[in-house]
Amino acid sequence: MRILNFSEAEYRSRLHRVKARMAEADLDVLVITEPANIYYLSGYDAWSFYTVQALVVFQDVELPLWVGRLVDSATAHITSYLPVDRIIPYPDVYVQAADRHASQFIAHTILRESPSAKTVGVEMGAYYYTARDHAEFVKAMPNAHFKDAELLVNWVRFVKSAEEVAYMREAGVITERMMARAVEVAAPGVRECDVAAAIYHAQMTGTESFGGLPATSPPHMGFGARAREAHPIFSDRPIDPNSAANVEISGCRLRYHAPMSRTIYFGKPPQSYRDLASHVIEGIDASLGLVRPGATCEEIELAWRKTMSAHGIEKESRLGYSIGVAYTPTWGERTASIRRGDHTVLQPGVAFHLMAGLWLEDTGITITQSFVVTDGGYEALTRTPRELIVKD
Amino acid sequence: MRILNFSEAEYRSRLHRVKARMAEADLDVLVITEPANIYYLSGYDAWSFYTVQALVVFQDVELPLWVGRLVDSATAHITSYLPVDRIIPYPDVYVQAADRHASQFIAHTILRESPSAKTVGVEMGAYYYTARDHAEFVKAMPNAHFKDAELLVNWVRFVKSAEEVAYMREAGVITERMMARAVEVAAPGVRECDVAAAIYHAQMTGTESFGGLPATSPPHMGFGARAREAHPIFSDRPIDPNSAANVEISGCRLRYHAPMSRTIYFGKPPQSYRDLASHVIEGIDASLGLVRPGATCEEIELAWRKTMSAHGIEKESRLGYSIGVAYTPTWGERTASIRRGDHTVLQPGVAFHLMAGLWLEDTGITITQSFVVTDGGYEALTRTPRELIVKD
Repeated sequence: MRILNFSEAEYRSRLHRVKARMAEADLDVLVITEPANIYYLSGYDAWSFYTVQALVVFQDVELPLWVGRLVDSATAHITSYLPVDRIIPYPDVYVQAADRHASQFIAHTILRESPSAKTVGVEMGAYYYTARDHAEFVKAMPNAHFKDAELLVNWVRFVKSAEEVAYMREAGVITERMMARAVEVAAPGVRECDVAAAIYHAQMTGTESFGGLPATSPPHMGFGARAREAHPIFSDRPIDPNSAANVEISGCRLRYHAPMSRTIYFGKPPQSYRDLASHVIEGIDASLGLVRPGATCEEIELAWRKTMSAHGIEKESRLGYSIGVAYTPTWGERTASIRRGDHTVLQPGVAFHLMAGLWLEDTGITITQSFVVTDGGYEALTRTPRELIVKD
Repeated sequence: MRILNFSEAEYRSRLHRVKARMAEADLDVLVITEPANIYYLSGYDAWSFYTVQALVVFQDVELPLWVGRLVDSATAHITSYLPVDRIIPYPDVYVQAADRHASQFIAHTILRESPSAKTVGVEMGAYYYTARDHAEFVKAMPNAHFKDAELLVNWVRFVKSAEEVAYMREAGVITERMMARAVEVAAPGVRECDVAAAIYHAQMTGTESFGGLPATSPPHMGFGARAREAHPIFSDRPIDPNSAANVEISGCRLRYHAPMSRTIYFGKPPQSYRDLASHVIEGIDASLGLVRPGATCEEIELAWRKTMSAHGIEKESRLGYSIGVAYTPTWGERTASIRRGDHTVLQPGVAFHLMAGLWLEDTGITITQSFVVTDGGYEALTRTPRELIVKD
């Protein structure tokens, strides 16, 4: 049994692009630990990244090696395109043990596979590549030269294929349904957790033709006085009348994301809310109007900033970030950000979450838009109207 | 506005115990990055750990410092017991930037607060303390002596207070409801993702008196041929008749967990399944019969192993692990494991997930039990009968 979400040809083309970057960076070996990167290159998909695992790419060997915990190797056989002999399990005595470390096992595996390998790239700032993983790894390969290759694979992922965009479009459809359910269920007196329950139900159900997956992150929902928090967790308190809520969610289709935020007001919104919402929408429109191949991230942000400063508003945090395939803890790709100083040039197939979130002292508004850049401009990944949602 | 899940006295008593261990380990400063440890010590609860954050405990200063991203500092003010001047935000230019790193900001904050601090403990193997976080930190504090303090706080957390056990009991009630819904909904022809939807809905809804939260991990559900995988993700394929599914889930109450697994058989289970299930249940009973203060983890495991080997079965992976408060990616505490060689002595207030999962070539059975050790033995955190569930 084999379940692949992409053709083997696509996996091989991704590997080819990674090897080209490895050559530029002068790497004999690349040790990939970020779960989204492992999935992107091999298809491997399990909740196993809480123990040490790696996909190891060798410049002079055709296929990578998967190295992970024995109980998870069955998933490697089923969800990756790798042949049996490229899947190397380590025994359970390495798991969270005081007297040995799985980095040692990975090091020995590399030395056996490619004894002459000198330069080893590692993803220094990748999630789940801990300080200890690295220290043990360096100790176990005393003759290797280590280089930071953080984001090497993330930048290869930056431009999406048509198949990837199709999954993101499906994720966007799920996002729309999740938000619609949230708006339907949320009302004064309803507990926050019951809104979350409805959102999660819609997220997994997806549509009649395809199901969803949990996103990298829970719904970020701040109700009432907590609407000024950026990443709060919901509670079991009932929603107050005449209050606002910020809801940030993402549908997920085969690990691809298309996030969206909206502000919901329960009751008649004060003029300050209506004004702020209309400024934010104006700012987003100004930014989106510039999105096309050749534009830079910084230019997109500048259009927003000019619009907002005309209204006397400043946003301290970045305006957006690259999105695509992702594992917990974030649906951001950690490559390009829509902010001052980011000169990344847009091209067809790159995708962003334009995160126009403002958390001011007394008013918070989050109205956002995920999009993918096309030949002539952009395609919105969610079609929920960009507006302050009022439940009166 | 202030939302605390425990009394300030409990937070201060936890801090006191951490400082005692810091004194034993000769630490002037402890930089805590594991989200569960930050929550345990301060109450701080946000989905912000995808950027750098820390709770810094000083041996010679009464209260810790929270250091994190500006947009998340509102949550620190609301969910932690720390006074305003102990909450130190860094600006957004530090977020995922190529030219600077938030570890530098943390280092400068420490040097300003306690210029004479020499010995700095860090959680080397903690989730979200990446190799790069550590390297930048060491570079920014060239005169400090760094020591690995991984698991220092985790071991303080190992023994739960009565208030913590109460939350775990509530988590267990949610777990029972989640499993009941899974069994109710799952049937041949139903899509796996629709079972997940029902589970998630029950997880957030909780009960009439308290709501739930998402757990650290999605439901691990392997259907049919995928029942031999330990941590698979569900799909949108319909369930086959005459097949088995392994379902591992956990309710979550204010970040406290009480996990459980069960095997569900759709149709008439072959005798091999019935036999394996009865052996597993016999093994669990043998282990649980020994649980009381004074017993060691290794003894608990030995009782299981003897029982299983009498039936010719060997389990390669560990039999269980300590549980309690947890953030993604795992509800395990990474301290004691129920396995050979672990001499940890049980005492009242410690809690475990006895994870009797067997993934054999053709048959997989997972029937498990979470429990907390009491004065005279143990209290089961879930009361779902330990049996092979048959939906015929």
